[in-house]
Formats: sequence, structure tokens, C-alpha cells
Amino acid sequence: MNDRRIIQPRTLKGFRDFLPDAMQSREWLIDTARAVFRSHGYVPIDTPALEYTEILLGKGGAETDKQLYRFEDNGGRDVALRFDLTVPLARFVAQHFGELGVPFKRYHVGPVWRGENTQRGRYREFLQCDFDTIGTESLAADTEAALVIHDIFAALDIGEFTIHLNNRLVLAGLLSELELAEHTADVLRSIDKLPKIGRDAVAGELRELVGASPAQADRLLAALTVTGTNEEVLARVAELAGGAADAGVAALTEVVAGLAAAGVAPSRARVDLSIARGLDYYTGTVFETFLAEIPEIGSVCSGGRYDDLASIYTKQRLPGVGASLGVDRLLAALEEIGKLDTSDAGPSILMTMFDGSRSADYVGVAASLRRGGLSVELYPEARKLGSQLKYADRKGHRLAVIIGGDEWSAGTAQVKDMVSGDSQTVELGTLEETCHRLLGTTPR
Amino acid sequence: MNDRRIIQPRTLKGFRDFLPDAMQSREWLIDTARAVFRSHGYVPIDTPALEYTEILLGKGGAETDKQLYRFEDNGGRDVALRFDLTVPLARFVAQHFGELGVPFKRYHVGPVWRGENTQRGRYREFLQCDFDTIGTESLAADTEAALVIHDIFAALDIGEFTIHLNNRLVLAGLLSELELAEHTADVLRSIDKLPKIGRDAVAGELRELVGASPAQADRLLAALTVTGTNEEVLARVAELAGGAADAGVAALTEVVAGLAAAGVAPSRARVDLSIARGLDYYTGTVFETFLAEIPEIGSVCSGGRYDDLASIYTKQRLPGVGASLGVDRLLAALEEIGKLDTSDAGPSILMTMFDGSRSADYVGVAASLRRGGLSVELYPEARKLGSQLKYADRKGHRLAVIIGGDEWSAGTAQVKDMVSGDSQTVELGTLEETCHRLLGTTPR
Repeated sequence: MNDRRIIQPRTLKGFRDFLPDAMQSREWLIDTARAVFRSHGYVPIDTPALEYTEILLGKGGAETDKQLYRFEDNGGRDVALRFDLTVPLARFVAQHFGELGVPFKRYHVGPVWRGENTQRGRYREFLQCDFDTIGTESLAADTEAALVIHDIFAALDIGEFTIHLNNRLVLAGLLSELELAEHTADVLRSIDKLPKIGRDAVAGELRELVGASPAQADRLLAALTVTGTNEEVLARVAELAGGAADAGVAALTEVVAGLAAAGVAPSRARVDLSIARGLDYYTGTVFETFLAEIPEIGSVCSGGRYDDLASIYTKQRLPGVGASLGVDRLLAALEEIGKLDTSDAGPSILMTMFDGSRSADYVGVAASLRRGGLSVELYPEARKLGSQLKYADRKGHRLAVIIGGDEWSAGTAQVKDMVSGDSQTVELGTLEETCHRLLGTTPR
Repeated sequence: MNDRRIIQPRTLKGFRDFLPDAMQSREWLIDTARAVFRSHGYVPIDTPALEYTEILLGKGGAETDKQLYRFEDNGGRDVALRFDLTVPLARFVAQHFGELGVPFKRYHVGPVWRGENTQRGRYREFLQCDFDTIGTESLAADTEAALVIHDIFAALDIGEFTIHLNNRLVLAGLLSELELAEHTADVLRSIDKLPKIGRDAVAGELRELVGASPAQADRLLAALTVTGTNEEVLARVAELAGGAADAGVAALTEVVAGLAAAGVAPSRARVDLSIARGLDYYTGTVFETFLAEIPEIGSVCSGGRYDDLASIYTKQRLPGVGASLGVDRLLAALEEIGKLDTSDAGPSILMTMFDGSRSADYVGVAASLRRGGLSVELYPEARKLGSQLKYADRKGHRLAVIIGGDEWSAGTAQVKDMVSGDSQTVELGTLEETCHRLLGTTPR
């Protein structure tokens, strides 16, 4: 039709399509994380994308409000898209407490929406992958959260990583000992700048901002930047704090001992008293995770312990501990360093087609290979071999099976290795075995 | 705090929380479908939840518009939540055509939103799970779509099922032969009522609505309700249509032959000329899938072939074939007939805790079992055994491992079978082996 209007296909600013390669990577990352969550007894939940705005805003300040996708629905309700998975978790646990019981261990993978400034390379729709244990103050749950982070990064096999561990009680003890407790917020903000502006500049800020004496600033920074083994760091900070940090030191000691007992290498779980992770939310253990090859992208899995998850929705006090995997940041980073290998994610074999009138025969051979545990894609049309092999290459197939008129007559098939380019002709009866051998897989 | 306001935790009408049991079922269903999609060479994509309203509404009429969650975003854009995955697929393929090429085979699992009347038991947020092959007219792609449906329901192992196959060209041929082609829409609407109101009532409607003679109505209904083997039905309808349905009959014959070659039992793929599936969209093969135990819930996986997916966004003609798995309907139905067994979804072993001061030792034993390929949840606190076993039961654990003071001293552990209640005491060194034996699993 000549008068047909074409609508320009486009997505909203800050929103992304995921093409197959990117989506396969995302599925690999999430499947790996889910397997680890499950192996530790975390169970999945889901909550609606849309909630009452009142539920989502709760304690949230003006900044959250401005970022919110908020509107009136057709029934006149004030609704908004969730901006994280923590607020919905709090609402969920408060609402279903009777059914869930404690300890309640859940994971939740899903999109969240924030109308952020996209110029900082941020997206307005992104995936979160959170796990938490609710309803226990036991440090065994803190240890487990760190162990889950460890097991995920070990399973991903993307190079070395280090989980940085701290406990907010250490800093609280130090500040109380130094009589700087009332300036906690300012001190935390300064300390967060340590990696960027260095120790001297932070000391200067502490003197200016909170009126710390040079001795106070020195003592604080000496404690926060102690280096050595975990045991050395903990012993030294206990000494520097003169007993005031003992609760935090004891908690960290227990978590570190648990991780050692679980076989976690000391290089992968380091006490780092300089990590702070925000001001209000965390009250005990805090975690950050850095990749050895790309520390500059920042923490790829962060979290910690909090005193009370859902005080806004229930009078039940719900302490907990958890962390959040930065799926999109991690995938972008892995792509940058070439660690995203999705060659195993796709199917392994392209069954080419040479004679459309024998379509059912090709379907039959492909199905029999699939019953043997192989992944087989059938090219749907009898096109030139070159086009079909190009397609096999684009889809990342490792083998192409070629059966033309001669092969049908002889009851054979050619198997082409897409990487080496080598071909061999085999009897149809041994095709499955040959494919398994070339792919290094085991017959079902 | 006394003055703290508690916000009542609640979800919006038509929106649901997924508690762990429901969510585990959903993950099982989707994981099963994804494995089948991948084994046939379909690759995953994702698209944004929010799109320009103009993109989503395209051809859509007033009804779609009324159901839309539509609003103005903070940047003044007219946006809406997607109401299906087909419109986003069309936009996606048009936008990325150069990168994707054809044939393009994708699956897409994600939530969609419709502000429907919830009184009919419908939800306003629900999950769709679609797969399509774009860019080929080859019937091998139609056969494959039916085979994917077959492989999913075979893998789910939820009882017998039948895929009903039709081709819109059969009906078109019949109507043209009977000189009723101009009344196609009305005829389709009547025929859709066949299972509910029966053949005589439909014949009556056809006479009234479209002025069909008794002979015309009889001949049409005789053709559409032919029974027998697939081959018998196809031969008989070819005869009844006097050649006018030959294109449709030939296409169905090819698909049926392909499915037979792939080893699909004839009872699982039946030609059924009475299924119509909507008026405008499908142009060739159509599918519906019914479960033998609960046919009354209707089709749980439906789809078909269309001539042109994305004519509104591109001048490129994109024929295709695909289907959509009714995830929520299927899960609700399976729950009703007790076929939702999630006992294998959770972790298998609860490691109980008796002495909080030995927390690291429990963590260590649990981690060593996990390294052996077992799923082990550690109870985080030293509470009464009864509470811990109750928790193990609620989480669906199959074994509980109990190590108290005596066991630590003796280097042993008790293993309790949560189903039979039997207990045995074993050396710590053989604990992993014992658990594998009791669970029937294989050491890693």
C-alpha cells in the first residue's frame, strides 16, 4: 500500500533492547547466580512492577520521588514503577509474614526503573539481582552472604576477585572513642573519598569539616588504613581503638573464621575498614566485591546487615543481611575485558537443508540427534550451502551437518567442524556418536 | 517510636506477589521451556517494559487503548507499558534488522500489563513466554514450532497433551468454494462456538448471520468436523472442498509428515479443522494445545503463521511463525490437578546448628558437602531441634544433618530422613557419601 504510514522503530532514551548475544550473557550470569542461591537454600520470589506510590515512597526523600515513574492509573490510583527490590521486599515480608516465617531467605531477579539522568551512562531500566536472609541476627547469616558472593564469582570463573568486609560497629566504636560520634555522617562521606583523594586530603577534610584535631584524624585514619592479614588488621585496630571497637572486631573475626572454615582463600575475603557503604541503612557487616582485572569499575556485588527491614509496614522487627549483584555493570565490564564467552550458550549443530521436498527427513534426523542430548538447529530452507554455513557461523554453531542427494542415497552425512573447517563423512547410524565426540559431550 | 505511622502493606488489584512455592514452579516451567527453545536454536532477547505509546498502539484499536497503562513521563513523552511481546518483537526486528538477519529465531519471556477487568479472573500483570521464527515461509519452520510445543510438554511430564493443527487456507478454500468468502469474519466467529453450542446451533447461526443455505452450512460443517486419522481427515476435506482447500491441505500434510518423522505420536498432533484462532493475524498454520486431564482450561500454548510481522515499522516483508506459552494459566491448572511438584526444586539438606560458638565448624561442613555437589542450607541459629526440623519440613528439605556436642567429640553426624523419620549416625568422613546415597544423587 502506498499510503501506509511507517512508524519509525525506536526505544525510549535510557531504555535498551537486549540482542541475543547480550541476552545470552545475562541468562548465563543469572542462571549461575540462581544455582548458587538455591544451593544455599535461598528461594525465589517476585513482586509487581507497579505498586501504590505510598508503598514505594515510604521513607524515601525528594530525590527518589523525582526519579520515580509515577502516574494515575485508569482507576484513579496513584501508582509507580518500583525503583529497587528492597522496598518491595520489605512490603512483601510485612504482608506475608505469617506464611513465610523466619529465617526467610529469598532471591529476587527483576527489572527496576529510575528516571535518572542518562548522561552519566546510567540506564532508566536495569536488572537487579538481590538475595537476603531476614529475621536473624546470627552472624552465620552474614558469613553465608559472603560465601554466596564467593561461590557466585568462583562459578562465573571470570578471574580473581576480592570481597572486602567491614562492620559498621568498628567505625562507630572508633568515632565514639575519638569523641567524633556526632559527626558520623560527615566522617563517612570523607572516608568514602580515601581511594580517590588519599589519606592526607581526607585528614585535611576531617580537620576542617568536623574540627578533628590532627591527632584525632591521624588515629582514625591509622586505624582505617591498617594493612596485613585479616588477623593482623583486626588485632591492630582493636589496639588502636582501645576496646571501643571490640563488638565490631569480634563480629568480623567470626565472619572471617567462618569463611576460612568454608575453604575461602584469604586473598578472596579481606577485612577493609575503609569501606562504608552509605550512611543510614547498614548497621553491622558490610560487603563490597572487586574484580582483580577491573577494580576501577567499582564494587560488582555489595550489601550488608541492617537492623530493621520493614519498620514502615509492620511493628515486627526484622533484622537481616543481604547483597545485590550488579548485573548490568558486571556484564558491561566483562564484555570490555573479553571475558564474555557465549560460545557454549547457543546450540551446537546446524543441520543444513538441501532439498525442501525432503524436509520431513531432515526434521527426523535433527530430532533423533536432539533425543541423544544434542542441541540441533534445522535450517528451514534449501538455500546455497555458503549462506547456510554463514548462518551457522553467525549463530556460533560448532558443527554443521550436511546431507545432500548423494548422502541420502548412501545413508551418510558430512560433518563439518565450523572452527577448523575439517569435514568427514560418516554413516547416518554413527552421526550422533560422531557429533558427541567432536563436541566433547556425553550421549544421553 | 510511638508516633511512627505504619503503612498498610498491600498490592494493587490485579497484581500479585509470587511466594516461593509459586515462584519455584514458574522457574521450573520457564527453565524447561528455555532448554527446549535453545535445543532448537532459538535465542533469547529482551525489550523495554516502557515504550512510546505510538509504537505500542500502531494498528491497535480502541480496546487495546483502554487497557493500556499509559502516561506522560518526566520528560513529557507519551509512554505506556507493553501489553504483549508481539508488538515489541515487530518493533525490535524492524529496528535491528541489519544486525539480526533472517531466519531470526527468538524466544522472549517477560511480564506484560493490561488494565483488564479483574472480575473475569484476569490479572493486570502477567508473564508471557513467546517464541517465533521470522523471515521464512518454509513449512519446516511451522513443523519446528509444533515440535517445540511437543518437546516442552513432553519435558514437563504433566500428563498427555494434544496439539491441534489447522491451516487458515483450508477454511479460506472452503469458504471460497461455498461462495461465502466475503463473510469470513462472521463465519469464523460462529465456528469458534462449535465446542460450546454444538453443530446444529452453529448451522442455525450461519443461516441467519450470513444467509448460508442449509446445504452450504451442512457442507462447511461436515468438512470442519471430519474425524479420523490425520491422513483420513486431510483426504476427506480435500474431497469435500472439491480442490479449493488443496493449498491448506498440502501444507498441513507436510507439517504432519514432519512431526511423524520427528517421532511425535499421532495422538499428540491432530489435524482439527475447527480451530480458528482469531480473525486477522494468522494466515497459515495455526496451533492450539490441550491437556488431556484438564481440556476445559482451554489452550495452554497457541500460535500460528503470519504473513507480515512488522509492516507498520518497516517496508521489509517479514513472514513468520510462532507460539505463546500460557505460563500463568498453565501453572494455575497444574496446581489444581496436583501436578506441581516442587519438592526437587529446593535444596536437599538442612544442616542444623546446636552450638553458636562452633558456627564456623558448621559452615565448614556445609561448604564441604556443597563442594561435593549437594545443596545444603545451614540453619543460622542454635535453636531447639524441633524448630529447626519444622523449618526443614517447611522448606521441603529431604535430609537434616544433626551435629551436637557428642557428635563433634566423636567426629560423627546424625542424618535424618525427613520423609521416613529414620536417623543414622555416620562418620563425618562418610557424610557426603551417605547424603548422596540417601538422595539418590551422584557425587561430583
